[in-house]
Formats: sequence, C-alpha cells, structure tokens
Amino acid sequence: MGESSIGKFRKDREAQNALVMKYAGKTVKKFYNVDMNAYQPGALDRKTKEMLGLVASFVLRCDDCVLYHLDRCREEGVTDREVEEALAVGLVVGGSITIPHLRRALRAWDGMKGSRTG
Amino acid sequence: MGESSIGKFRKDREAQNALVMKYAGKTVKKFYNVDMNAYQPGALDRKTKEMLGLVASFVLRCDDCVLYHLDRCREEGVTDREVEEALAVGLVVGGSITIPHLRRALRAWDGMKGSRTG
Amino acid sequence: MGESSIGKFRKDREAQNALVMKYAGKTVKKFYNVDMNAYQPGALDRKTKEMLGLVASFVLRCDDCVLYHLDRCREEGVTDREVEEALAVGLVVGGSITIPHLRRALRAWDGMKGSRTG
Amino acid sequence: MGESSIGKFRKDREAQNALVMKYAGKTVKKFYNVDMNAYQPGALDRKTKEMLGLVASFVLRCDDCVLYHLDRCREEGVTDREVEEALAVGLVVGGSITIPHLRRALRAWDGMKGSRTG
Amino acid sequence: MGESSIGKFRKDREAQNALVMKYAGKTVKKFYNVDMNAYQPGALDRKTKEMLGLVASFVLRCDDCVLYHLDRCREEGVTDREVEEALAVGLVVGGSITIPHLRRALRAWDGMKGSRTG
Amino acid sequence: MGESSIGKFRKDREAQNALVMKYAGKTVKKFYNVDMNAYQPGALDRKTKEMLGLVASFVLRCDDCVLYHLDRCREEGVTDREVEEALAVGLVVGGSITIPHLRRALRAWDGMKGSRTG
Repeated sequence: MGESSIGKFRKDREAQNALVMKYAGKTVKKFYNVDMNAYQPGALDRKTKEMLGLVASFVLRCDDCVLYHLDRCREEGVTDREVEEALAVGLVVGGSITIPHLRRALRAWDGMKGSRTG
Repeated sequence: MGESSIGKFRKDREAQNALVMKYAGKTVKKFYNVDMNAYQPGALDRKTKEMLGLVASFVLRCDDCVLYHLDRCREEGVTDREVEEALAVGLVVGGSITIPHLRRALRAWDGMKGSRTG
Repeated sequence: MGESSIGKFRKDREAQNALVMKYAGKTVKKFYNVDMNAYQPGALDRKTKEMLGLVASFVLRCDDCVLYHLDRCREEGVTDREVEEALAVGLVVGGSITIPHLRRALRAWDGMKGSRTG
Repeated sequence: MGESSIGKFRKDREAQNALVMKYAGKTVKKFYNVDMNAYQPGALDRKTKEMLGLVASFVLRCDDCVLYHLDRCREEGVTDREVEEALAVGLVVGGSITIPHLRRALRAWDGMKGSRTG
Repeated sequence: MGESSIGKFRKDREAQNALVMKYAGKTVKKFYNVDMNAYQPGALDRKTKEMLGLVASFVLRCDDCVLYHLDRCREEGVTDREVEEALAVGLVVGGSITIPHLRRALRAWDGMKGSRTG
Repeated sequence: MGESSIGKFRKDREAQNALVMKYAGKTVKKFYNVDMNAYQPGALDRKTKEMLGLVASFVLRCDDCVLYHLDRCREEGVTDREVEEALAVGLVVGGSITIPHLRRALRAWDGMKGSRTG
C-alpha cells in the first residue's frame, strides 16, 4: 500500500464515519468517544497502546482495524522489527488462521511510505 | 447500495444458493430448511426475528449475512432509528472490532431505496 | 437456577463490578456508561433491546452475559415461548457449538422463579 | 476423566437435553435432527466425521463439544495417536489460545477407560 | 474458480509469503515450519488431515484458508461428495453464519478443473 | 487469587502440560517451542510482549490464558495502572462480551500478592 493507497484508505474511512454519524444516536456517539479515549497516553504511552490495538485487531482478524492501527503505529514511530514481533505474538496466539491477515498486514506495512528498517 | 446493487446482491445470492443445492446432500438441504423456519412468525413476529438475525450476524461480523438481514428488515418496515438502535446494541456487545461492519451496514442501508427516516 | 441462585448471581456480579470500579480509569468507566445507555428505550423498547442483547451474547457464547440478559428479559416480561424463539434464531445462526450454552440458558431460565409458560 | 466421570457427563447431557426438549419449538427440534444427520456415514465414515466434529469444536473452543466428540471418537476406535494428530491440526490452525482446551481434552481422553495407545 | 484462477491464487499466495519471509523473525519462520509439519502423514494420512484443516478453516470462516485446503484436498483425491459432507459437518457446527463461506467454497471447488463427481 | 491460588494455578498448569507432553507428537512439541519463542525479548522487551499476549488472550476471551499472562506481567513489573489501561484497550476492541473476563481478570490481579498500586 503506497502513500496514495493509505491516503485513499483514510479518506474512505472518514467519509464512512461521516455516514455513521448521520445515523448515530447517543450510544454510537459515546462509543466513538470511548474508543478514542482508550488510546490516549496514560501509564502506557500511545505507541504501546497502538501496538495493543494492533494485536487485538489482528487476533480478531479484522483487516480494516489492522490497517488503521498499522497506520497509527507508523505515526508513533514503531519500527519494522517491532511491528513484526508484535504480529508474531498475534500469530502464535491466534494460529495459522491469521496467516492471510499477516500477509495483508505486512504488504500494507511494506507499502507505507516512510516505514523504518529498524 | 442503490436499488440496482441490492438487486444484484439478491441475484448473486440466488445463483450461488443454486450452486450449493447442486452439491447439497441431506444435511445441507435440511439445514437450509431449518434456517428458513427460524424466522417464521410465532410468539415473536417476523420483524423482531429479523432484527435478532441482524444483530447476531453483526456481532459475528459477517457482512453478507448483515446485508441479507438489512434487506429483510427493510421489507418488514424497520425504520432508520430502529436499525440504528439494534446495531448500537451490537456495537456495544461486540466492540470496536465491529466498526468497519457498522460502516458497511449503514452505507448499505443508506443506499437501499425506500429506507425510512423513522 | 432458583430464586436464591439468581440472587447469588446478582450479588456476585455486583461485588465484582465494585472491584472493577476500584481499578477503573476513565475508559472503563465510560464504557460501563455506554453499555447501560445501549439498552435504554428509544425507537425500540427495553424488551426488544434485551432480547437483542440476549441473542448477541448467545452467539458469542458468553454464559454470564446470557444469564444476565435472561434475568433482564424476565423482568421485562418476555415469555417462555419468546425466549425459546429468540434462542432458536441464535442456535441456527451460531450452530451446534452453541448447544451447551442453550442447555445452560434454558436450565437457568427454567429455574428462575416466576418464569411464564407463555 | 474416569469411567464414572464420562458416565456422569453422559447422564447430565441427557438430562439437560430433556430440558431443552421441554421448551423446544419446531426450529430447535429440527436443528437437533440435522445435527444427528451430519454425522451419519456416507462418502465419509463415522470415524472421519467424528474427527471433523472434534477439530471443529476444538478450534471454536467448546470444551463440552470437544468432550462429546472425544467420547464418540473413542467409540469409533480412534487411537491415541490419531486423536493427538487431529488435535495438533487444531492447535496449529487455532493457535496457543487453544492450549488450555488441549490440556483439558487430553486429560479427558487420558481418563477414558479403554483409550488405546495406538 | 477455473484453472487460471486457482493458478493466480497460488501465485499471489507465494508472492505474499515471500514478503512475509522478508520481514519474518525466528518466531514467524518457526511457525511456518510447524504449520507444514501438522499436515505430514502419520497415524492419519494427508487426505484426512487436509479435510481436518478444511473444516477447521471453515468454521473459523477464513475464505483464503478454505480455498487453500480445498486445493490441497483436490490434490489428495477428495471427491465431491466427501468435500460436501465435510463442509456439512462444518455448517452444522458453525451455523448459518458460515453459509456465505459455503457458497464461496463450493463455487471455488466447482471451478477447479479436475474436481471429481464422486 | 491469593499467593496460594496462583501457586495452585501454576502447579495444575505444569501437571497438565506434562500430560500434554506424554501424548505430544512433533507438531505439538514444536508448537510449544514456538510459543515460548514469541515472548523472548528482541526489538520489544518481555514486558511489552507479555502485555500484547495479555490483550490478545483477553479479546479472544480465554480466562486461563489471561491469568497466565497476568502472572507473567506481574513478574515483569507491570503496574496496576498499566494492566488496567491494557485491559481497557481490550474492553473497547472486544466489547461488553469481555466484561465477565474483565471482572475475573481484575479479581485475579487484585489477589496476586505483590501487585503494585502504580
């Protein structure tokens, strides 16, 4: 996923969230708020929390969620080796059923401009 | 999803079910029969059962199943606000991992011709 | 589950939630709030929302969550036949893997004092 | 699980299924029928189908279902090495999250009187 | 899926696995090795193990994994009726939520050149 | 869970793993090896990897796995606030269906002698 693909991913995500907000009642709006809150720095920093979100999304096998957290991990300066080790934990916990998601995750990560070689 | 998209979805589904039936033995055929049976009105009406099917499909994160039940909900007269509140229960039970499915569900619902503003 | 068992279940749940609150930061506290919000009556009434929560919990196979929603369903006047039909939708969507949960759910329901014969 | 434990497991299961049948409407009854049908011999024999049911139950992490299929596998003459290899496929597909279930499965298998050493 | 589609599937899979290996540390490499090991013939033959992998992948609802095991099943001489009966066990265990995967699985199987009529 | 309970948990786990090893073929043995490998320090330290394992286990809702990683987190010096924030990410990703697991996790954590107040 090149710079333009990640840009497209972000734009689509934004447009679809706008549609969600068109329908959203109180519960959905509050949920979005809690979701943002969970990744704010506290005893754990943003980077660690994004890696936790990444691995949780990975073992639950949600490609869009994985892609979102990869993008955030990159912003927080997670290196190639760190992302690989985080996903390796996910692979072992979640099993070979996660392998197609691992392939797509690393392809996306590989394509993100500015990924580091750690 | 406009009128033509939902029409295409229905046609594809029908064609693929025909293929399933080409291979289906007794167990698969009986299962399809039980599946239809579960949504027949009884102590609960069709509309309630379709909403139950919708939320069950949503928390198990199957887009095709969600789309099918959204289409059926629309036929049973479920309103925008009702569908949003049903999905909000699903979102809270199932967590942020369901958000990409929520986006796709509401986009599909939004595009279905004849959806009500409740 | 007789009157005393459901009483014990409620007391344990309360005690454990108090422990959660001892540790809870902002995110967990807000999440509990959103969770309560999702079942408030709106376009759908409490009874329907509790049945949605029941079936969502059932297909995700969480016995404690199922028991909680059964208790709430009983309070909202859901009848035997209604609960059976709701769980039947869950059984068909979720498959035979849910059967042990169906057994435990109906045993609990059967034991709740005041359950109706619909 | 010794001979008496597996006997108790079977009796409890029977008693609870009787309770399910007390409540069961048409859908649940038909589902139980389809469930039995799926394991009847056809192009695949009973033994293979029970191993398929075992591994499916294992990766979905339902201890009661695993125990039931282990009991049936034993009746069909599955050996120690066969059951271990079937569960090994499940472990790799399902990941380390299945390890507690692997422990309980092998403890139950080990305790079943008459298990073979293959 | 015709001969060319399955060829494309295999090529894409190979290319993406090469990318995984570019990033892979020791854990991921060892995991891939264990994954291959699980399907080697032992007390159970390759054909049975591939069917176990197929049904495990099916109930966990991973289309790519299902497609891979269908391709391997075909190579091991699994017949139409055998594949249908294996998937029927998966359908009953996993529920109607697997139906879209059943449709895609049988469409892929149907399109594989050389599938047998059993 | 007091010092004696965690001691009992560890002993039971060890005894059951010994039983697994009695049956284990090559695949299972190698899997156990990969599992240990995944948590060795590398680009990420042990503490971060244990928190990743904790959250992965939590969203997949395996109490035994959660308890194991909580025990390891404590050994690595994870504080009360860190464990709460990690579980809060898991709660938001995994939804209210994880709440009974959150209760049990925090009860276990609370009872572990030597847990820190962060």
